Amino acid sequence: MSEKAQHLSKLFAPGSIAVIGASQNPGKVGYAIVKNLLESGYPGKIYPVNPREKKILGLKCFQSVKDIPPSGKNGESVDLAVIAIPAARVLEAARECAHSNIGFLIVVSAGFKEVGSEGFELEKELAAFCRQKNIRLLGPNCVGLIHTHTPVNASFARGFPQKGHISFISQSGAMLVSIIDWSEIAGLGFSHFVSMGNKADLHETDFLEYAGGDPSTKVILYYLEDIVDGQKFLEKARFISAVKPIIVLKAGASPAGARAVTSHTGALAGSDDAYNAAFRQSGVLRVDNMEELFDMAFAFVNQPLPKGNRIAIVTNSGGPAILTTDQLEKAGLQMARFSPETSKELRSYLPPEASIYNPVDVLGDATAERYKFALEKVLQDSEVDGVITLLCPTATTDTTHIARAVLEVRKQYHQKPLLGVFMGGKEIQEGQALLKEAGIPCYLFPERAVAAMDGMIKYYKNATEIRQKIALQKSDPRKWEPDKTEELYDTAPVKAAFYDALRERRLVLLGHEGARVLSAFNIPAAPSRLAREPREATRIAEEIGFPIVLKIASPKILHKSDIGGVVTGLANTSEVEKHFKEIMLRAQRVTPDASFYGIEVQKMMPPGMEVIIGSSYDVQFGHLLVFGLGGIYVNLFEDVSLRLAQNLEEADIEEMIRETKAYHLLRGFRGSSPLDVPSLKEAILNAARLVTIFPEIREMDINPLLVYEKGVCAVDVKITLSHIFMNDTHPISEHEELLAGQFAERRI
Amino acid sequence: MSEKAQHLSKLFAPGSIAVIGASQNPGKVGYAIVKNLLESGYPGKIYPVNPREKKILGLKCFQSVKDIPPSGKNGESVDLAVIAIPAARVLEAARECAHSNIGFLIVVSAGFKEVGSEGFELEKELAAFCRQKNIRLLGPNCVGLIHTHTPVNASFARGFPQKGHISFISQSGAMLVSIIDWSEIAGLGFSHFVSMGNKADLHETDFLEYAGGDPSTKVILYYLEDIVDGQKFLEKARFISAVKPIIVLKAGASPAGARAVTSHTGALAGSDDAYNAAFRQSGVLRVDNMEELFDMAFAFVNQPLPKGNRIAIVTNSGGPAILTTDQLEKAGLQMARFSPETSKELRSYLPPEASIYNPVDVLGDATAERYKFALEKVLQDSEVDGVITLLCPTATTDTTHIARAVLEVRKQYHQKPLLGVFMGGKEIQEGQALLKEAGIPCYLFPERAVAAMDGMIKYYKNATEIRQKIALQKSDPRKWEPDKTEELYDTAPVKAAFYDALRERRLVLLGHEGARVLSAFNIPAAPSRLAREPREATRIAEEIGFPIVLKIASPKILHKSDIGGVVTGLANTSEVEKHFKEIMLRAQRVTPDASFYGIEVQKMMPPGMEVIIGSSYDVQFGHLLVFGLGGIYVNLFEDVSLRLAQNLEEADIEEMIRETKAYHLLRGFRGSSPLDVPSLKEAILNAARLVTIFPEIREMDINPLLVYEKGVCAVDVKITLSHIFMNDTHPISEHEELLAGQFAERRI
Repeated sequence: MSEKAQHLSKLFAPGSIAVIGASQNPGKVGYAIVKNLLESGYPGKIYPVNPREKKILGLKCFQSVKDIPPSGKNGESVDLAVIAIPAARVLEAARECAHSNIGFLIVVSAGFKEVGSEGFELEKELAAFCRQKNIRLLGPNCVGLIHTHTPVNASFARGFPQKGHISFISQSGAMLVSIIDWSEIAGLGFSHFVSMGNKADLHETDFLEYAGGDPSTKVILYYLEDIVDGQKFLEKARFISAVKPIIVLKAGASPAGARAVTSHTGALAGSDDAYNAAFRQSGVLRVDNMEELFDMAFAFVNQPLPKGNRIAIVTNSGGPAILTTDQLEKAGLQMARFSPETSKELRSYLPPEASIYNPVDVLGDATAERYKFALEKVLQDSEVDGVITLLCPTATTDTTHIARAVLEVRKQYHQKPLLGVFMGGKEIQEGQALLKEAGIPCYLFPERAVAAMDGMIKYYKNATEIRQKIALQKSDPRKWEPDKTEELYDTAPVKAAFYDALRERRLVLLGHEGARVLSAFNIPAAPSRLAREPREATRIAEEIGFPIVLKIASPKILHKSDIGGVVTGLANTSEVEKHFKEIMLRAQRVTPDASFYGIEVQKMMPPGMEVIIGSSYDVQFGHLLVFGLGGIYVNLFEDVSLRLAQNLEEADIEEMIRETKAYHLLRGFRGSSPLDVPSLKEAILNAARLVTIFPEIREMDINPLLVYEKGVCAVDVKITLSHIFMNDTHPISEHEELLAGQFAERRI
Repeated sequence: MSEKAQHLSKLFAPGSIAVIGASQNPGKVGYAIVKNLLESGYPGKIYPVNPREKKILGLKCFQSVKDIPPSGKNGESVDLAVIAIPAARVLEAARECAHSNIGFLIVVSAGFKEVGSEGFELEKELAAFCRQKNIRLLGPNCVGLIHTHTPVNASFARGFPQKGHISFISQSGAMLVSIIDWSEIAGLGFSHFVSMGNKADLHETDFLEYAGGDPSTKVILYYLEDIVDGQKFLEKARFISAVKPIIVLKAGASPAGARAVTSHTGALAGSDDAYNAAFRQSGVLRVDNMEELFDMAFAFVNQPLPKGNRIAIVTNSGGPAILTTDQLEKAGLQMARFSPETSKELRSYLPPEASIYNPVDVLGDATAERYKFALEKVLQDSEVDGVITLLCPTATTDTTHIARAVLEVRKQYHQKPLLGVFMGGKEIQEGQALLKEAGIPCYLFPERAVAAMDGMIKYYKNATEIRQKIALQKSDPRKWEPDKTEELYDTAPVKAAFYDALRERRLVLLGHEGARVLSAFNIPAAPSRLAREPREATRIAEEIGFPIVLKIASPKILHKSDIGGVVTGLANTSEVEKHFKEIMLRAQRVTPDASFYGIEVQKMMPPGMEVIIGSSYDVQFGHLLVFGLGGIYVNLFEDVSLRLAQNLEEADIEEMIRETKAYHLLRGFRGSSPLDVPSLKEAILNAARLVTIFPEIREMDINPLLVYEKGVCAVDVKITLSHIFMNDTHPISEHEELLAGQFAERRI
C-alpha cells in the first residue's frame, strides 16, 4: 500500500470527527450528518460545531473547531472535519481546521465550481489552501462518505447500508443516495460509499488505490462522468484489476462531432472509444447501465469466478431454459456438454421424461431432492465452468425447500459460480430471499443472470491475461524502455522533419516527410521525394525506379485526386515530365491561393491489401492507436480496433488485429494466400512507439498501408503536429529555441 | 371480426364449464382448476366430472359429461370442457364431449407430443377427431386460460391476475404461471392469459385474430418458440398491428449451421433473420428479454403514443439525467430542444441554479410544485414528443407529494407519454406505487424507461407506415396480382430453363440459363451462351461482342476460378479459341469426374458497383429477399438487409437499400457519381416476384449485380431449384408429367 493509501484509511476510520455547521434543525444537512454519525454506531468522538448552539442531539456543541480539546492518550487533534456551511465561509473554516491540525475535510456545501465562475474561483482557492497545508479534501458539493466496517456514516444520506464488501464510488451524490436507499430492499451489502462531488482534491484514482488495498473491499464500483488523470487511473487499475474486479458505469459519452477532426483516425476514435480501449486494456469492466452494475457486483462479491465459459442450466421448465440458452449464445458463452458419466448418473436418478442433457430439465413437479441431485452432478462435472438454476413456481413447486437444497449444494461445491433465476412473485419470494442471504445471486429473469455470468467470465479472462502480461513484462529482455529509443530508432530524421515543418509554420507534414518519419521508425514506406521542377522530378524518378506516382505536395489540399493532383503508373521520364507540368498547371488554375511545395515523386507499389494504422491524441488518456481495413472503405465500414498507444504490447496487437474483419482477409480469404501478419504487427508496434516518443504528433493516418505476402509498405501518410503541445509544454517564442537546437534535444 | 374469432369469444366467456378429472385432492391439477374457477368469480355453471366423487369443493360432481343436464332457458349444452386426466384416456373423454355437443376443449394433460412418438400419435388422433367434430382444442399439455373480464380462471396456475388490458399468449406454461405470480407484485393488469401447450389445434394466429378484435385487449404479448403458419400469422399481424401493438418474445434461435447452405444468401439468412424480417414487415415489435416485454407492455397499455422521438427529461439530480441522455442517444432518440417560450417560463419560475434546458434540473431540493411547473411546461411544448421524469430521494425530497403532482399534471396533459424513474428503495416506494396505480409506468433505473419509450416510438412509426402502405396498396393501380404475371413477364423462358434442368436431373441452373431467367423477369443480365466446342464459342463471341469472359459450365464446380475455369478480358476470336481449349484441358485434368456442360461465353461488362440480390426459402415464412454489398466482401461484412419476398413493395425496397452501408456507395461516396438506384429497385422488385411466382426456386444468388450510373447488369447468377417442392407439391414420377407438358402449365 502506498503512503497516500495508508493515509486515506484514516479518512474512512477517523478517531474523531468535527461537524462544522452542525444543526438542531431536522431540515438541515448539518443535523442529518450528526444524526447519521450517531446512528451508524460510529465508535469515535463526535464534535458538533456551531457558534449558536450549546447541544445538538445530546452532544456538546463547540463554538469553533479551535475550542475542541485535544483527545486520546497523546492529545491527538481531530482527524476529520465535515463542513456544511455556506460556500462563502468554507475557506475560513478550512483555515481554522488547518490551525487545529485536522488532516481531512469533507465539504458537503454546494455553491462551488458547479454554479459558475465565482464558485470556481472559490473552489480553486480552497483546493490550493488544502494542498498547501497538506490537508486532503473530499468534495466540495458532495454527500459525504460511509464505511460500514468502521462503522461511520459521515454523510447526509438517509439510511445506513447493510455491511458487505462492495465499495461504490460515485461522481453523482444523488445516485449514491438512491443506491443506499435501494440497497436495503435489494439485499446488497456494502463496505464503502464515497460521494466525490466536484473532486477538487481527492478523486477516483485516490479511492482506487485505497480500495485496491483495503481488505474489506472485494469489488470496486464506480459511477463516473469523467476521469481526472486518465493515464494514472489506468496504470493503477491495471494492477488492481488483476486481483480485484473494478466495474465502471461511465456516463456522458462526449460528442465526437464537437472536436476538430481532420483525419480518418480522428473520426474513428471518439472519446468514448478511448474510454473503452482504456478500460479494456486495464482490465476494468465497463457496464452500460445501473442494473448491470449491481447485478454484476452481487455476483462478483459472493461467487467464485468461472474458469471458462461452459455453462450448465438446471431447470424445472422448458421455456425459460430456451430463453437462457439463447441469451448465453448471444453473449458468446457455451452450453456445457456433459461428460458421459454425468448424463448416465442423471439418467439413472431422474424420471424418464426429464432431459439429462444441457439444459437439464428436472420437470415441473421437481422436488428439492431432484434439484439437489442434478445440481450436484453438473457442478461435479469437469466440463462445466458455471451453473444457472431456473425455477418457475408450478402447482407442486416447493420453492423454499428447493432454495434450501440449492444452499446445501453450494456449501459442498463452492468452486464454481452458481446463479439462481426464480421467476415469479409471492410464491418465490421466500426462496429468493434465502438464496440472497446466503450470497447466491437470485435474479427475476434469465437475461440478468446471463449478463452477470458473462461479466464474471470476461473479468476472469481479462485478469488472467493482465497477470500474464505483467509477469511477462517483468521478465522480457526485449522490453522497451524510453531510454532504449536510440538503440532501436534513428530519431534524427523525425526531429528534422518536424523542424522543417515548424520552420515553415506548418502543422501538417508533407508526404515525403511523413515517409521519412516512418522509415526512421522501421515502418517501410514507398520511396518518395519532393521535386520543385520537372527536371528534378525525372532525376528522382530515375533514381527510385519506375513506375512512378506524382502527387501534388500541399498540406492545404485535402483531396488531391479531386483536382487532378495525383497521376499514377508513369512508366518513363518523358511521362513524368509531361505530367509534372500538367499537374502544376491544373493546381495553379484550380486553387491559385493554395500553397504548393512542389510535387512528390513516389515509387508506385504493386497492389496489396489496404489497411490503416492511425493514431489520435485523447486529452484524457494520451494517444490512441487504430488498426483496421484501409482504403476508401475505412469510414464506411469502420472495421477498426482501438488501443492506447502507451505500453502497447505484442499480445495487444495480436488482439487488435483479430478483432477486425480485416483479419480474415489477412490470413487468406476465399482462396487467396495468407499475408505477412508478423510485419504488420511490427509496423503497428513501431507506430505506437513513434507517437509515444513524439507525443507532439496530434494525429497520424497511415492509409493505406499495403500488406503483401512478404512485407508491408506505407503508401500514404499524413502526420499532424500539435500546436498546443508545442506552445504549452515547450514554449517556443517564434523559432529562437528551435534554432538554438534545444528542440532537437529535448525529448531524449 | 371473422367467424372464427367470434367463435373463440365463447372459449373465453363460456356459459358453463365441465372439469373432466376434477378432484378432491388439493395436490391434484383437477382440484386446482375447480378451485380457480370458483375463486375467479366465474359467473357461469361449473360441472366437476369424476366417476369416483359425489361433491367437489361444494359442487355436485358428475359421473360423466353425458350426465350433465342441459342448462339455460334453451337447454344449451356445456360450452367448454377442461380435461385433466391421463393422456391415454383423453380421446375417450373427447368423444363423450362431442357426444354432448361441447364446442371447446382445454386439454391440460401432458403425455402427448412432448414425450415422444407414442404421444405424438395420440395427439394426432385427438386433433383429427376434434377437427372432424368441429371442436376447437386448446393444448394438450397446457396450463389453461384466464380472462379477467369474464371473469374466468380455467387453468391450474396459482393466483388470479389483476384486471387490465394486456393479453399474454404463451407457448410456455411455466412462464405463464411465473408471470401470473409476478404480475401482482409488479402491479400489472391483464385481460387474458393463454397457455397454448402443444398447439395441436388452436395456435398463435387464432388468438391473434381473437385478441385483435377483442375490446378488452389493448396490447398483445407473445412468448413464442415457433409459429405454426408463419405467412398467415404475418398477414393477420400486419392489419392488427396497425391498430394494436403486438410484442413478441421469440425464443429458440434455430442454428443456421444445421441447415444445408449452398449460397451466400443462405448463409446470410439464418432462420432467426427470417423472424426479424417478418416481424418488422408486419409491424410486430420483437423484444430480447422478459423484462423488456413487460416494461413495454406497461407503457403501451396506459400511455398515449409519442408522435415523434424528441424526448424531454425533468430531474432533480444530474447524474441520472446524464445516464438517461446517454441511453436516449444510444437508442437513436433525440433530446428535445425547447421553444424559447418554454425556456423563458422555466427561467422565470425555477431557481437560478436550475437548468432550464433539456434535461431540466429542478435541483435536489425540488418541491412537488417545482416538478409540477416544469412538467407542465415541457408537456405543453410542441417541440416535445415524450417526457421522462427522474427522481432521487435527497434529504429534502417528498416523493409522495411529487408523485401526486405528477398525477395532476398527467390528468391535464394526457396527449404525450410520461414515464417515471424513481431511483431508490423504501423512500420512493409509496410514490412509485401511486404512479403505477394511476397507469404511469415508474421504473427503478433510467435504462428501462428509455427502452419503453423507444419501443413506443418504434411502434408508432411502424404502425403509421403500415397504415399508409395498406391505404396505398388499396388504391395502387400498378399493384401486382398473381394473375397479372403474364402481362408483366414472359414466363416461358423461365419454365423452359427449369425444364431443361429437370430433364438433365440437375437442381442448379447453368449460368446462361440463370441469365435467361433474369432477362425474362426484366432484370438485365450480361449476354451469355453455352458453347460446346471452340468454333461455337468464337461464333457466339462475335455475335455478342468483345471483350469476352469464358466460364466453365458445371454446376458441380463451386469455385470456378480456383481451377482456372474463368478467363476474362478476351479481345478477339483467336484469344477465345485458345483459352477455350486451355480451360477444357485444365478442367478435365483437375476434376475428371465433374460433369461439364461446355463453356459459357459471356460478354464482359465494364466495372460497376457490386451488389448482391439473393433469395432463400424459409420453411416458416416462404422466400426471403436479401440485398447488400456484393462481390467478395458479401460474407465478410454481411452488409445486407432482409425482407420477405411475398408482397414486397417499393417502400420496403427503399428501406432495404437505406439500411445497408452499400447505400452510401450508391448515392455517391467520396466524390464519385450517384448510381442508378431506380433501376436497382426495379431489379429487386422483379427478383421478389420471380421467387414468389416460382416458389420452386430454393435459393438464388445474383452476385454481383453491377450498378452503373445508368442501368444495372447481373454478371453472375446461381439458381437452385427445390427438390422437395418438385416431388411433394407436384409429384413427378421420373419425367412423365413433365414431358406431358403439365409442368410448364401448372403455375399460371
